[in-house]
Amino acid sequence: MRIGELSRRSGVPVPTIKYYVREGVLPAGTLTSPNQARYDDGHERRLRLIRALLDVGGLSLSAIAEVLEAVDDPGQPVHKVLGVAAGRIIPEESGKPGESGETDEEEVEAAEGAGPESAEAREEVAALLARRGWYVDADNAAARSLAGVLAALHRVGHGAFVELLDVYADAAEPVARADLDYVRRRVAREDLVESVVVGTVLGEAMFGALRRLAHVDASARAYGDPEEAGRWAGA
Amino acid sequence: MRIGELSRRSGVPVPTIKYYVREGVLPAGTLTSPNQARYDDGHERRLRLIRALLDVGGLSLSAIAEVLEAVDDPGQPVHKVLGVAAGRIIPEESGKPGESGETDEEEVEAAEGAGPESAEAREEVAALLARRGWYVDADNAAARSLAGVLAALHRVGHGAFVELLDVYADAAEPVARADLDYVRRRVAREDLVESVVVGTVLGEAMFGALRRLAHVDASARAYGDPEEAGRWAGA
Repeated sequence: MRIGELSRRSGVPVPTIKYYVREGVLPAGTLTSPNQARYDDGHERRLRLIRALLDVGGLSLSAIAEVLEAVDDPGQPVHKVLGVAAGRIIPEESGKPGESGETDEEEVEAAEGAGPESAEAREEVAALLARRGWYVDADNAAARSLAGVLAALHRVGHGAFVELLDVYADAAEPVARADLDYVRRRVAREDLVESVVVGTVLGEAMFGALRRLAHVDASARAYGDPEEAGRWAGA
Repeated sequence: MRIGELSRRSGVPVPTIKYYVREGVLPAGTLTSPNQARYDDGHERRLRLIRALLDVGGLSLSAIAEVLEAVDDPGQPVHKVLGVAAGRIIPEESGKPGESGETDEEEVEAAEGAGPESAEAREEVAALLARRGWYVDADNAAARSLAGVLAALHRVGHGAFVELLDVYADAAEPVARADLDYVRRRVAREDLVESVVVGTVLGEAMFGALRRLAHVDASARAYGDPEEAGRWAGA
């Protein structure tokens, strides 16, 4: 199909499609003449995936480029792709460069100034892994990320929130099992990898929205008057 | 204290502190001479909160400015602050402007081209709310956000992931109840509002990291060899 048809089918404007090709997140079409390219169903599918990761997953275009590069590389083992996808959605303790207006040097300085909270947080994560009997290396990226969250909670004076860790872990276990079952139903590598990316990113957004909805409901029950409580909880 | 002391205590470099003041996320110090300002514990606490929302919560500085403005306005009812905080972390279906390189017009066009998936998603959310007996208006921001996630899943050909909705909702309920209990222990308005912001943003990051850890563990159990499986799941 031509680019106009691709735009109509995907709902993505033509200039945006061209922009995605320039940025390397969408493969170029096959040239049929010096000024015309042909696109196929693969392009349409990829466009929908880009929009979902961008709009709903909240990933930046550069993060998407990195994830899709790993997806498209057949020599890349599945676990590597997962690592890239997870790394793009779970920030590590050092933070996101650039957004805070710092130079690289300051960035490093700030990250190093983590203090005693970091050591305490790492111990809490190690204790959690031992307590739950999870087969996870304490040096795992998600474990480091969790330690970053706990350290931040201590630093802002909300160390008591860490007591909710097991409530959250109880909730995370069945969700993770269901995610894995979903992924295991896929056979082809392309499908498998894509389902992991979708599940990781959109599953995160799905849980976030459900948690907010459950806040509204819990607040309605706790405060008696559903309408009043609904307003209280930001409805 | 002077700015140098504030920097040492908080681990945030002096130029970054000045940048935060210019951007309006940190109140200016009290001038003690034309070139010198004094800062207090409130500034240190606020700096730690900014860093946590930035580094761990993944919020942009402009989102933080909006949330903190609501926190600081004593005339602002608590539910309004919650709405602002939730709105900043849960993107709605229309997507994040600017990141995709589109003009406003294209943005609108793309959002309107949502198609039949959106109607289907809204029905799925309404059915979920009815099925679970949640006291939530279907027009609630989080409900719209959830509909956006479901529509995106359908659009990328992963409508089957929507079958996990109740597994996720089962997990979200106890988490939301624990969050609310945590917030209700706070008495002072400032503490209450801050704990909601921290709980909403950092709680999200905490669950995300735990879900990833539980993926690694579930994968280890499913595939037998913990080491091999750990690698598979991106460890």
